[in-house]
Amino acid sequence: MKFILYMNKKVEKLKERIVEISHLASISGLLSWDQEVMMPRKAIDARAASAAHLAGIIHKKFIDIDFDGALTNLKKQLDKGKLDDKERAIVAETWKEFEREIKLPESFVRELAEITSKAQSVWAEAREKNNFLLFLPYLSEIVKLKRKEAKLVGYKNHPYDALIDVYEPGMTTDDAAKILNDLKDFLIPFVKKISLSKQKINSKILEGNFPIEKQIKFNKFIAGKIGFDFETGRIDESVHPFTMGLHPYDTRLTTRYKKNNIFYSIGSTVHEAGHGIYEQGLPVEHFGTPLSESISLGAHESQSRLWENNIGKSREFWKYFYPKIKKEFPLPFNKISLDELYKTINKISPSLIRTEADEISYNLHIILRFEIEKEMIEGSIDLKDLPQIWNFKVKEYFGIKVPSDSLGVLQDVHWSCGLIGYFPTYAIGNLYAAQFYSVMEKQIKDIKNKISKGDFLEIKNWLNKNIHTHGKLYSAGDLVKKVTGEPLNSDYFIKYIENKYKEIYRVN
Amino acid sequence: MKFILYMNKKVEKLKERIVEISHLASISGLLSWDQEVMMPRKAIDARAASAAHLAGIIHKKFIDIDFDGALTNLKKQLDKGKLDDKERAIVAETWKEFEREIKLPESFVRELAEITSKAQSVWAEAREKNNFLLFLPYLSEIVKLKRKEAKLVGYKNHPYDALIDVYEPGMTTDDAAKILNDLKDFLIPFVKKISLSKQKINSKILEGNFPIEKQIKFNKFIAGKIGFDFETGRIDESVHPFTMGLHPYDTRLTTRYKKNNIFYSIGSTVHEAGHGIYEQGLPVEHFGTPLSESISLGAHESQSRLWENNIGKSREFWKYFYPKIKKEFPLPFNKISLDELYKTINKISPSLIRTEADEISYNLHIILRFEIEKEMIEGSIDLKDLPQIWNFKVKEYFGIKVPSDSLGVLQDVHWSCGLIGYFPTYAIGNLYAAQFYSVMEKQIKDIKNKISKGDFLEIKNWLNKNIHTHGKLYSAGDLVKKVTGEPLNSDYFIKYIENKYKEIYRVN
Repeated sequence: MKFILYMNKKVEKLKERIVEISHLASISGLLSWDQEVMMPRKAIDARAASAAHLAGIIHKKFIDIDFDGALTNLKKQLDKGKLDDKERAIVAETWKEFEREIKLPESFVRELAEITSKAQSVWAEAREKNNFLLFLPYLSEIVKLKRKEAKLVGYKNHPYDALIDVYEPGMTTDDAAKILNDLKDFLIPFVKKISLSKQKINSKILEGNFPIEKQIKFNKFIAGKIGFDFETGRIDESVHPFTMGLHPYDTRLTTRYKKNNIFYSIGSTVHEAGHGIYEQGLPVEHFGTPLSESISLGAHESQSRLWENNIGKSREFWKYFYPKIKKEFPLPFNKISLDELYKTINKISPSLIRTEADEISYNLHIILRFEIEKEMIEGSIDLKDLPQIWNFKVKEYFGIKVPSDSLGVLQDVHWSCGLIGYFPTYAIGNLYAAQFYSVMEKQIKDIKNKISKGDFLEIKNWLNKNIHTHGKLYSAGDLVKKVTGEPLNSDYFIKYIENKYKEIYRVN
Repeated sequence: MKFILYMNKKVEKLKERIVEISHLASISGLLSWDQEVMMPRKAIDARAASAAHLAGIIHKKFIDIDFDGALTNLKKQLDKGKLDDKERAIVAETWKEFEREIKLPESFVRELAEITSKAQSVWAEAREKNNFLLFLPYLSEIVKLKRKEAKLVGYKNHPYDALIDVYEPGMTTDDAAKILNDLKDFLIPFVKKISLSKQKINSKILEGNFPIEKQIKFNKFIAGKIGFDFETGRIDESVHPFTMGLHPYDTRLTTRYKKNNIFYSIGSTVHEAGHGIYEQGLPVEHFGTPLSESISLGAHESQSRLWENNIGKSREFWKYFYPKIKKEFPLPFNKISLDELYKTINKISPSLIRTEADEISYNLHIILRFEIEKEMIEGSIDLKDLPQIWNFKVKEYFGIKVPSDSLGVLQDVHWSCGLIGYFPTYAIGNLYAAQFYSVMEKQIKDIKNKISKGDFLEIKNWLNKNIHTHGKLYSAGDLVKKVTGEPLNSDYFIKYIENKYKEIYRVN
């Protein structure tokens, strides 16, 4: 009894330290949010300096977290199996992050920060000028450093393991390859079938004149209706939509608007609201510890995609919202049937740009990037061949010719930021979403009927209870097994896509 | 030569430290701004915790600033007269703040923080319930602590000196008493004269239906026109208008709106824009040092009041803006002449509430508070007699009977926050404004004509050059002498008020 008390006290001490760091990280998040959404234009350099000072303090506090050996001691207890579940999660996660941090020397971190800071503007210029060679030396340097990072951090089988682990903890390169290959084997022929279908969808019918003020109101209505809580969150506008969870009681989404197309904003609002509902569902009593952190990027993306696609682009969802949107915007919607609307928002149309991709071909964009990243980190391709490799794959996967590197290998900002190993989580998220949703459909009685009546509470509660409330108590791999009874795989997503699109496009 | 280089290096080292602290203080300011303007309702406790962690870090960094004796060394050089003007300002101001900080033990600071934190909600309840006795024990404790603070910090003549010095550095109780007594001797009979005037002004004529969106646009137009820069600032809405200068390139104002009265928002927008133009005019190259800090609260208030009253309620100002506001809001303004408008926005009507007071009687509100605070800190009044003392003074100064303590002694939040010594700066600001403006009128050729043409650039430049750009290089007392040739006094304000209101109210 005395021993346990002693243990808890040590964990409490560690908790105090990580909670303080989390509060500071939360402030750091506010600085970013404010920069994207509120900050006056000219404050950019001043803000960068303020943020850097804060980042320095956070880094130092984290590095010093074990100054008295408290964390090391707890790690020993952990290894001896002497901690309870929650303590285990707190100590293991903190240790993991700490270990990674101390394995990377400051000189390395600074070098990476400097090169990626420069690389982002060079990348922007290269994309604008359609000049891959401009970006190549920076990319080479970044890839070199990311390979070094993998080496410093360590890995079992594949250096890419060490990178993917940051975003999707516990997932290996082989895991990802297996799942994504299965998916690819299904997707390429399926996309081809759809492109040959006689069902043609004209997305122009959704265009109209949608005053932004009215769009904002309608977007907020949808977000609130599906369960985003405006007492603990807000929605604003930014160039690139994002969600910032500062605290379970302070979650901020952004979306974006196009005057002629309200589905442009609705799509990103529902997506971000999915992220936001996750953040709002993290257990507030554990704020600042891994028990109140999201489990992985893939799991996070599963929440946004589940709301955006599985629910938000379902017939039932629009059965409920269609009369509402018609009332606000009689034109063009009075002229369009629910069935037409449903098909149009689910139009499949493989294209060059990932961020504009439909629900199916999006995954091929990710698979392409995953395959290239893996080889970049292995060192098995020459980076100057990247445009050719890219274009070849696009032709193979989508049947499209890439007219310029700006619309090809230069389209994404990620590599210039040093984000390698991040892309797979986008596709993984879709798989999690489908797998979770298949169980939810069984467990929530009459779910389709509920959706079509605008009753989303049980869905939100199910997600809260089965996913959000656990924080990082389980690994993503364990959670998906716990909730769905089997490891993550592509079967559910494939089945979901087949069911949905065979009907829409009348293919088999 | 070598010696000077060495000196500069020491100052540079100190600068690095204070600049870091200023960046953190700037972040702390953003937290407050966000809390008032953006933050979701339920995040209040989480935000308090985040802000407290940051405040703790800032406090520790400031307390540690002299850890290697660098500041003490510089202070010795300062005392020997070995620093140049800018170095002197940096070292003297930092030393002053540091000395005050180390003179107040942490236990004292914590005690004051705790009592004022509780006192604010008790005050709110007391005001709502019109129950002064509820607030009395908290006020007693706060006054006791503020007297202790004065003792700990030290003072020459009057304990209140130590408190006023925080807000109006260099000004003593005797200085303030002299100036404010002169003012009072003029104001009481003058207000009486006006109240007996046959000129009656009906402020209802300005009422109408002003949609908030259109008000926001018009307020931004005015603020931009007088010189508030939206590339380095923004305007939002909050319950109590305020200005937050995070950096010369990031200054944020708030204002407030009433649907039936656009002058309600214009008044506070122009006021806050005056504060904002000061913040934006601080020299950016010295950010983080006293050279880029505002000189005093009184000086700050002079900038807001100068724009709000001396300029913003002048006939010339409205000669320019009246056609514009008429175009946006034909009703009620098409029915009102410029002369009627001018007189109505300058209506004098002594009333119970400070924040609703007109340009003249406002100062009597302040004088009343100053006299009471002085005696509270001397210990020469029994706090339980405060309501009687208050009501007696209101009767004497305004000729009005106070119907309830909620509309009397309980109306202001300041004392519950521990802000004692702050009130005088509001009146002092009006005096600075009039004194500065009288010189500006002589130095800017044809100023009235320029205002009536909407040409405010020279005025802004004059304020930038004569006041803003100096930061804390001079004391407020020295600056006013440098700019106007004489110490701060009430003559200019009295002359301004006489000129303006003798005409409006046809009194002599």
